[in-house]
Amino acid sequence: MNIDRIRAAAVRLEGHARQTPLLGSPFLDEIAGRRVLVKAECLQHTGSFKYRGGRAAVSALPSEVRTRGVLAFSSGNHAQGVALAAREMGVPCVIIMPEDAPTLKIANTRALGAEVILYDRAGGESREALGEAIRTERGMTLIKPYDDPEVIAGQGTTGLEIAAQAAALGVRAAEVLVCCGGGGLTSGIAMALEADAPQMRVRPVEPEGFDDVARSLKSGQIESNHGPAKGLCDAILTQSPGEITFPIMQRLCAPGVVVSDDECLRTMALAWGRLKLVVEPGGAAALAGALFHGGHIEGDTVIATISGGNVDADVFQTALRRFGDLA
Amino acid sequence: MNIDRIRAAAVRLEGHARQTPLLGSPFLDEIAGRRVLVKAECLQHTGSFKYRGGRAAVSALPSEVRTRGVLAFSSGNHAQGVALAAREMGVPCVIIMPEDAPTLKIANTRALGAEVILYDRAGGESREALGEAIRTERGMTLIKPYDDPEVIAGQGTTGLEIAAQAAALGVRAAEVLVCCGGGGLTSGIAMALEADAPQMRVRPVEPEGFDDVARSLKSGQIESNHGPAKGLCDAILTQSPGEITFPIMQRLCAPGVVVSDDECLRTMALAWGRLKLVVEPGGAAALAGALFHGGHIEGDTVIATISGGNVDADVFQTALRRFGDLA
Repeated sequence: MNIDRIRAAAVRLEGHARQTPLLGSPFLDEIAGRRVLVKAECLQHTGSFKYRGGRAAVSALPSEVRTRGVLAFSSGNHAQGVALAAREMGVPCVIIMPEDAPTLKIANTRALGAEVILYDRAGGESREALGEAIRTERGMTLIKPYDDPEVIAGQGTTGLEIAAQAAALGVRAAEVLVCCGGGGLTSGIAMALEADAPQMRVRPVEPEGFDDVARSLKSGQIESNHGPAKGLCDAILTQSPGEITFPIMQRLCAPGVVVSDDECLRTMALAWGRLKLVVEPGGAAALAGALFHGGHIEGDTVIATISGGNVDADVFQTALRRFGDLA
Repeated sequence: MNIDRIRAAAVRLEGHARQTPLLGSPFLDEIAGRRVLVKAECLQHTGSFKYRGGRAAVSALPSEVRTRGVLAFSSGNHAQGVALAAREMGVPCVIIMPEDAPTLKIANTRALGAEVILYDRAGGESREALGEAIRTERGMTLIKPYDDPEVIAGQGTTGLEIAAQAAALGVRAAEVLVCCGGGGLTSGIAMALEADAPQMRVRPVEPEGFDDVARSLKSGQIESNHGPAKGLCDAILTQSPGEITFPIMQRLCAPGVVVSDDECLRTMALAWGRLKLVVEPGGAAALAGALFHGGHIEGDTVIATISGGNVDADVFQTALRRFGDLA
């Protein structure tokens, strides 16, 4: 994994991925006590940076392999990113989801042209066995959500853009807070900034109770969360950092930041009112860190990623009911 | 009023106004039955295109006039656009608002550095008399919300961007639906497109019961709405088109489109889920026209402006409760 791979992914993504804006608001600066810049990946196709990784991975396959199609396990943003990339490139796509996944996520993934195969999670059906059968029968390639060099390279293009957009604003040094699940986006951005903005340092942000990356960075080895990966910030709940992503984060990242669910809901309301952007709870974590954990942040400027691929209407209403009165 | 004035405003706005993106979603295309491109002015500073007009007007004043400050009557987006422009240019700004204006709008306008003077609307206090007194005493210049050539020129820069961004996507012909109150944005965009995208035609979109522009275009003379300017789409409720804006619209615009409040709420939910953007009811009107009045629209592509400067949390929750289930 190196910067050339990220630059190569950027070339393949050109004209496909959106260059999302780097936005700000004086109201957010006031809360944070410093300048806050927000990398708005909610405006990416499918609403999240996952499309970058999906497109990078699908487009990196040799054409004779790609033609047979791609496969992913996901009920969320990764599913939609891979599905859209596959449709754009004209190759078949199977997404394996639990049958109790939200109706809207299933419908959205199907609407993007994927064949959705549901499995009985509660009944103990193994998605891995199902996926292995499809790989063998159809010769499809599995696209992992984060622990894949091409996926990391695709997510890393976000970092190339951050470096260039911040420089255009005169910003060269900053802490860059990244919403972190398995570490694909975090490690990709960290490598991109190492090359293009070496005065910036990246920090993963996770929700309370799912701070495996923060704990891994502290202990120096891969740590895991306990219990089921269920919680408000579902988009970024993973059991542990990846085998490929962790060493990169260990080499390049500053200590992790941990935020509460309430801080994420409040941040959703602030992004709604002050940025006019729709963010999902997990996609609000980094900005929540920037706004409410400033005591642990250094410097005049903080940059945070946001995203919002699959926002539940009830959760959004809760955020507005509780925190929508910004006055 | 001519295209040179719009181009001059664009030069003055450069590096200040954001070039907002022209976005789309396959889900919206499917609803509309054609390609839909959305000019996302909710991402403009203060959340609406009004900043463009405010900045254009304030920056057009001779410096000895500008130094004495500017004045506006508004409880909404125009207030915030003028306030921010004045603050950026370092000149005093007075905004006159009714004392029953929403707390958040008053707070936001003050936070942007304006001196807010409240008047007793119910008690019959005249805002015009109040404004006249301030003009005389302090020598401030009144910035009108739409019937001012520099304001129209500022809003018209939106049209220059639409022409360039659509051309970059290979789109040269389209109907361009514009959320229309007094006609500043509509007439400005129409003039910009006459010059830079002559195969596009502009159509004003208004809410039911406030279709003064549609009726004026039909009758060939300025028509008015009856009753108080109160309704869901408060951002675009005006009594009649302006003396300057109407002749421009009459010369350049195709017939108006009229949408219902329910269509605007539904569009807010769709922009939330499919574009990840926060739009206010009046700022959703044009997109509602594009999505739900396709029978009256010609061609393969429709372009709609959206904006969202002052979105009420309760109204937004209503939109999500009623229409947030997009499946």
